[in-house]
Amino acid sequence: MTPPNATFAADDHNCAAEAYERHFHGCLERLRGEQRYRVFADIERISGRFPAAKWRRSDGTVREITVWCSNDYLGMGQHPEVVSALTAAAHRCGAGAGGTRNIAGNNSPLVDLEGELADLHGKEASLVFTSGYVSNQASISTIGKLIPGCVVLSDADNHNSIIEGVRQSNCEKRIFRHNDLGHLESLLREAGDRPKLVVFESVYSMDGDVAPIGAICDLADRYGAMTYLDEVHAVGLYGGHGAGISERDGVMHRVTVIEGTLAKGFGCVGGYIAASRSICDAVRSFAPGFIFTTALPPPIAAAARASVRYLKHSSAEREAHQRQAAATKRALKAAGLPVYPTDTHIVPVIVGDAELCKAAADRLLERHAIYIQPINYPTVPRGTERLRITPSPYHGDSHIAELAAALAETWETLSLA
Amino acid sequence: MTPPNATFAADDHNCAAEAYERHFHGCLERLRGEQRYRVFADIERISGRFPAAKWRRSDGTVREITVWCSNDYLGMGQHPEVVSALTAAAHRCGAGAGGTRNIAGNNSPLVDLEGELADLHGKEASLVFTSGYVSNQASISTIGKLIPGCVVLSDADNHNSIIEGVRQSNCEKRIFRHNDLGHLESLLREAGDRPKLVVFESVYSMDGDVAPIGAICDLADRYGAMTYLDEVHAVGLYGGHGAGISERDGVMHRVTVIEGTLAKGFGCVGGYIAASRSICDAVRSFAPGFIFTTALPPPIAAAARASVRYLKHSSAEREAHQRQAAATKRALKAAGLPVYPTDTHIVPVIVGDAELCKAAADRLLERHAIYIQPINYPTVPRGTERLRITPSPYHGDSHIAELAAALAETWETLSLA
Repeated sequence: MTPPNATFAADDHNCAAEAYERHFHGCLERLRGEQRYRVFADIERISGRFPAAKWRRSDGTVREITVWCSNDYLGMGQHPEVVSALTAAAHRCGAGAGGTRNIAGNNSPLVDLEGELADLHGKEASLVFTSGYVSNQASISTIGKLIPGCVVLSDADNHNSIIEGVRQSNCEKRIFRHNDLGHLESLLREAGDRPKLVVFESVYSMDGDVAPIGAICDLADRYGAMTYLDEVHAVGLYGGHGAGISERDGVMHRVTVIEGTLAKGFGCVGGYIAASRSICDAVRSFAPGFIFTTALPPPIAAAARASVRYLKHSSAEREAHQRQAAATKRALKAAGLPVYPTDTHIVPVIVGDAELCKAAADRLLERHAIYIQPINYPTVPRGTERLRITPSPYHGDSHIAELAAALAETWETLSLA
Repeated sequence: MTPPNATFAADDHNCAAEAYERHFHGCLERLRGEQRYRVFADIERISGRFPAAKWRRSDGTVREITVWCSNDYLGMGQHPEVVSALTAAAHRCGAGAGGTRNIAGNNSPLVDLEGELADLHGKEASLVFTSGYVSNQASISTIGKLIPGCVVLSDADNHNSIIEGVRQSNCEKRIFRHNDLGHLESLLREAGDRPKLVVFESVYSMDGDVAPIGAICDLADRYGAMTYLDEVHAVGLYGGHGAGISERDGVMHRVTVIEGTLAKGFGCVGGYIAASRSICDAVRSFAPGFIFTTALPPPIAAAARASVRYLKHSSAEREAHQRQAAATKRALKAAGLPVYPTDTHIVPVIVGDAELCKAAADRLLERHAIYIQPINYPTVPRGTERLRITPSPYHGDSHIAELAAALAETWETLSLA
């Protein structure tokens, strides 16, 4: 962080207040100088017409655009069963939960949602949080704190919420190279007799690659470690019932704790863990970030449950999703674009420069009415700046053709590699 | 924490897995032994009939109860304007936001809500988080990290979310005795020329007492400190437009950062800060807990905005709230109950023993169909265990008479002091 650019010790309030203001202003200027200042596009989703949305410009004018970077991967946020579960619960129970889970906020739709999620993952119990971020932060830190001497083995590419959870656990941390089984094994061996927790993701969101879950479970078994698997970019999307990559690979029962989100494949908001009754109960009982926060609103819990239930029994969305993702990759490659190869629904197109990445996204939005947020450092390493494209079942073949043409025009105009 | 009750180093997976399970089980048993194990009552709010709710017992049977411990202080969660804003936005935009604020999740209802909140507090800007807990944790830690050498002066009774925010800022921390201006001044003086942040609440939720905001601002001015004021138990409830105690006291413009919640007085979910444009932009740009999490759903943002707007212009709910809180205190005192005196809407009735507090709450629920969650350590200090009663505008005089009679019967049956 930059040193303070003024003394804050003034006897004169205005002087000190202005010094603080100048300081924050300076922090932001530095960010701008590094091409890291983010501008949020102001958009309004149009239910029933996903991926169409309204883009509200800073001058107040509105234009219809096509969203190509949503994490509502299956468009479930607009599904009639989800929307009607939401509005029905709002009419029945009102808007908010009214309290923490302990104090008047433990609403029946949320209890039912936890039953549904436990069943989805074949675990004894589940526990819902206000976000996926909080679920990782609160669960990992609490599990780590409850096991004295625990060593956490964490994949190098883990999400910020995992990194924060591990940090707040105060456990000794060992980072293993991304998806590197040999490195993980050597670290497990080094940890000896101590209790151990291996933390990793199934689908890594920026590169779209997949962890060898079964092989990691083999190592965990061999060295007596627990496993904590983040499936946020996979739940709803993979497996016969949408329980994720661990279901698809037939290893769900081997993972100690599965963490998921209700905000992406399920189209709502909130996060959860699914695990044994003791683990869920321990996190429920000891995690401040769970205890001291208002429960998820009944309408959101009801909507999320409807989404989970629907995707347990319908594979049509998952199949269409994979089909359109594959079609998108093919179309962009055919147009000569630098598509980063992935085994999943995530389609990264590499630009490799922060300023050009932002320029490409701006041109796509302004000229082609296509919205793809640029992904720059620190979300991805410098030199790998990219457009991260997320096709859905609702991105039809004509959308894909338009996208390929718009990207090709943008690449040519900006002289991108 | 207890030491591990078995080695976790087993070559045999089942053996290690069982050892972990036994360990978590042991943690929970210890909690039970200390009378600190919490059981959540499973309730379903009945929109339009607040404070009535359905209580679902563990055997599946359902009974209608009266909720006396909700933090939906004004019953806004069931207000027709709030519910219709929620359902209209769900039909228009769908359920979830579809992404983080940066990536496809910056929905127009949320942008409008932030404008509404900035206006409410007379600040340049506001920033909305998924919860009040996250807003404190993310904002305080980020502000602290951005100011090198900052000393944080924190009230001894501050909420867990503030404590976590201060801890994660890695700043030097000085705790001042609760609402003690002399102690705060001596700590400010000791901090000398260094940058300083004073963090406190307006209404303290468990004792219902109020901070001397103006006097704290005087000290902050004199010693060149910023102020961060948590108004979560006051927004919607106090001030001419529901902006909180700082509005009521005419000192809102003097506070650097005001933090509030959408989950209590406003009846929805989510938290926010209101401050200068630079501060909100700095937190927006640097706080991982804001950056890496899915945005609040459009229906929730629309509902919260409707609630904020409504309470800006209607004081009837605030007046009825204060009237019924005063009537509740009078009725309980007249019945000889140990009401802890407060200047606010919060009515603590002290039991002073964890087991008896739980027994009283159980009896109230089972015999009298009155739901008041027992408040035990660590939420309050040992020896001050209590029932925390929160009257609303919808608790009528007959509800109050029933409550007084039920409490008197319970106190007599359990031979409470």
